[in-house]
Amino acid sequence: MSERIGQVVKEFRAYTRRMKDYTETIGVMSWDMRTGAPKKGLGQRSEVIGTLSGDLFKMSISPEMKAFLDVLAEPDTYGKLDPITKGIVRECKKEYEKSHAIPPELYQEYVVLTNKSESAWEDARKNNDFASFRPYLEKILEYTNRFLEIWGYKGHKYNTLLDHYEPGMTVETLDSLFDGLRLKTVDLLKEIQERGQATNPSFLEQHFRKEEQRRFSHLVLQRIGYDFDAGRLDESAHPFATGLNPGDVRITTRYDENDFRTAIFSTIHEAGHAIYEQNISAELIGTLLSDGTSMGIHESQSRFLENIIGRSHEFWSCFFDDLLKFFPRQFQGVSLEQFFRAINQVQPSLIRVEADELTYNLHIMLRYELEKALIGGDLTVAELPGAWEEKMKDYLGVVPPNDADGVLQDVHWSFGAFGYFPSYSLGNIYAAQFEAALLRDVPDYREAVRSGEFGVVKKWLTDNIHKHGKLLEPKEILESVTGEAINSGYLVRYLEDKYTQVYNL
Amino acid sequence: MSERIGQVVKEFRAYTRRMKDYTETIGVMSWDMRTGAPKKGLGQRSEVIGTLSGDLFKMSISPEMKAFLDVLAEPDTYGKLDPITKGIVRECKKEYEKSHAIPPELYQEYVVLTNKSESAWEDARKNNDFASFRPYLEKILEYTNRFLEIWGYKGHKYNTLLDHYEPGMTVETLDSLFDGLRLKTVDLLKEIQERGQATNPSFLEQHFRKEEQRRFSHLVLQRIGYDFDAGRLDESAHPFATGLNPGDVRITTRYDENDFRTAIFSTIHEAGHAIYEQNISAELIGTLLSDGTSMGIHESQSRFLENIIGRSHEFWSCFFDDLLKFFPRQFQGVSLEQFFRAINQVQPSLIRVEADELTYNLHIMLRYELEKALIGGDLTVAELPGAWEEKMKDYLGVVPPNDADGVLQDVHWSFGAFGYFPSYSLGNIYAAQFEAALLRDVPDYREAVRSGEFGVVKKWLTDNIHKHGKLLEPKEILESVTGEAINSGYLVRYLEDKYTQVYNL
Repeated sequence: MSERIGQVVKEFRAYTRRMKDYTETIGVMSWDMRTGAPKKGLGQRSEVIGTLSGDLFKMSISPEMKAFLDVLAEPDTYGKLDPITKGIVRECKKEYEKSHAIPPELYQEYVVLTNKSESAWEDARKNNDFASFRPYLEKILEYTNRFLEIWGYKGHKYNTLLDHYEPGMTVETLDSLFDGLRLKTVDLLKEIQERGQATNPSFLEQHFRKEEQRRFSHLVLQRIGYDFDAGRLDESAHPFATGLNPGDVRITTRYDENDFRTAIFSTIHEAGHAIYEQNISAELIGTLLSDGTSMGIHESQSRFLENIIGRSHEFWSCFFDDLLKFFPRQFQGVSLEQFFRAINQVQPSLIRVEADELTYNLHIMLRYELEKALIGGDLTVAELPGAWEEKMKDYLGVVPPNDADGVLQDVHWSFGAFGYFPSYSLGNIYAAQFEAALLRDVPDYREAVRSGEFGVVKKWLTDNIHKHGKLLEPKEILESVTGEAINSGYLVRYLEDKYTQVYNL
Repeated sequence: MSERIGQVVKEFRAYTRRMKDYTETIGVMSWDMRTGAPKKGLGQRSEVIGTLSGDLFKMSISPEMKAFLDVLAEPDTYGKLDPITKGIVRECKKEYEKSHAIPPELYQEYVVLTNKSESAWEDARKNNDFASFRPYLEKILEYTNRFLEIWGYKGHKYNTLLDHYEPGMTVETLDSLFDGLRLKTVDLLKEIQERGQATNPSFLEQHFRKEEQRRFSHLVLQRIGYDFDAGRLDESAHPFATGLNPGDVRITTRYDENDFRTAIFSTIHEAGHAIYEQNISAELIGTLLSDGTSMGIHESQSRFLENIIGRSHEFWSCFFDDLLKFFPRQFQGVSLEQFFRAINQVQPSLIRVEADELTYNLHIMLRYELEKALIGGDLTVAELPGAWEEKMKDYLGVVPPNDADGVLQDVHWSFGAFGYFPSYSLGNIYAAQFEAALLRDVPDYREAVRSGEFGVVKKWLTDNIHKHGKLLEPKEILESVTGEAINSGYLVRYLEDKYTQVYNL
């Protein structure tokens, strides 16, 4: 590599490090806003975050960035870069191409629109009034279509949107993944419903004091390998994880004193996200690759920990004595078997975020199909509530009594995040594939979980997935770990096994 | 004002608003670092704060800033500006002149030096080893002298340093303020020591559970007018207040379960700082004038609330019933009178931050005189420990058994903050002057405090001091409120009255 290129690399690394510093900054301020910043300062704080985000955005499409990419993304030069610089160039190029192409005025109008639209959605949901939200959603679709004309697309228009959240994912792949999954899920659901309740789960809905829940959550987090020297657990209205840097990955949870499941499973879920980022390789710290590689892979880590590990018989076999110590009154006379069945109960319901592990994917497929139809021009916003009801009935056999609990339940569309929903189910699909690979490499991993040796699992995840951060793309990670392309068959098998165990199918 | 000037003002206001946004950002990140950020992320976090601070510094000396000042600080134009823009121009000009004159390499060397020096100081204090810190302090003095050659000075060299913390303050003024104060303080101290203990304060050193202390602190904060919708109370190793914006001014405290005084008085002290910034006029929000006007005025607000209000008989008369409710066992049989005397006990001691209200100023004068001699070239760093001991003996009658509890006790010199210490006593002097003015305007204010009507005092402080933020300079505020120049006679009188009451002199 020539001296000149060496110098450009050095400057590019410093420039992108600064971008990462800004990203961490915005992360700290957003975390603070959501975990306890005093309300009278929030207006000013939003403006400050706006300023910093604007500055970061400008860096990503600046003339300096263009000059860096002109040199470093040039194929001959690119081929000779070290892997980390290469990864950063790849990510910056993607971002540059996506953002630079949009005329700034158009983008500015869109930002203003989505801000208004999010408030409009909040009001609409509160008042159960889809009509008041409809013009906003129509406008957002209009802008999305204009952006798509600029970005271009291969095959279905929706592919470009999918690619923003899950690099390389297409409608063709998703359709085939989801088709098999949907049929099997509907079959399984029918079988389960014929079987009736596996147990009466009402013991989960007693009074559980927040303080004990908090302490129990801490105990579980510590044992499963969440590093409290590189993180902290707080409360927020909606649980989230935020990786500021691998030495500071925070999670939040929400305590419901009348439902044991709320806090513990959202805590484990967020810990899955957090353990991912805590274990990103040290050499990536301070680079734009110090992050999860995609929404889908990130979600695979949270869902793996929450569902495949956290709702397993082995996991609760490990924690059952502690559970009884923390909540002796509530779980008096409850067996491990009953507890395991209760936390895995399947029950079709209206709200995605409250859905069980099996029916959850049906909620996602419904949204995916509606998004695809909206973007493809096969469905209008006006027809959306009707289409929602119809699909709910088809897939889940339940019909929302109103739009607030139906088409208005999620925030995503209000800020134009079309293409985001599939990541949740991709997370489940990846997670099951990873588990199969784990079982191949560590055949007795379930026994390790039962005896509380979570280190075995954590080490495998770190070595195979976490340490890479965003250095490898999702496809590369999946293929290097499993030797296969994405395949929903593993999730189907996992679900069949799981519910055979829970419901004695 | 011409259209062109109008346009420059508009751009200047946007530019400086961005600087304020960066200031808030750095504030949030520093607060976070000091209140619970996980330790493994601190290294990376320091770098991020460094990046943002560097960017803010660059804005303050940029060619754009120079161009703004060239237009707006031009006397004719300046005279026609609105008061807020005028104030911002004044502050930016001061900062520009101070920072721009220093060659960037020199400044960079100095930043590196002070970082190392602060660690060296920490180690030196831990190991009671002044010799290891001495070369750092010598270097820092060397740089300070180089800066002073660049900045220039009128009269004593130290004047320029004083001016950085307290605009307009000079050695001449300080010497005359402190001379009177020192003589009277030493006299009063002698009288008090002859009188012996006013009461036995050992009941303050029982076990006080943190949780009750926390709740009691909240109660007091709420009543004295700290707005929890615009703030929050956390814990940190060293208590501090930080004003992110007037809607978000946070305080921290430190709980000592074996000493009742630690948390409550530091909480009230920080609340004094915080109430100042919470009540800055709304029109200043987002400008560089949304801040306290100087270190001394800021400290006057904390010391007014902590000492003049918070250690008064009236204050504890108001809170005594609550005190007994929170700590019935600890204060069983203790009278209001005894309590009042105990929290106002005078006892010469080694450590500034633990000093009582009377002897505190002696600690400051000692540091002031040593700083002045160091800067003036009348004292070498090598002679410093000896000079320290001598003055301690002279002023306080106690001699530190080692340098850790003597010349090494404060962090300030390790990062070159010469000129900072006098602000603490200036705060006391201003506070007493303000109290005299309050008494003139609201003659029954003490009765109001006794009946818990703190709103009266808060309103007076807001109208006269707080609302102005940094719009008025310290001198202007003092003179507009009191009609007088700075005068330590009020503090002397206040101290005489106070200790006459406490010790029946």
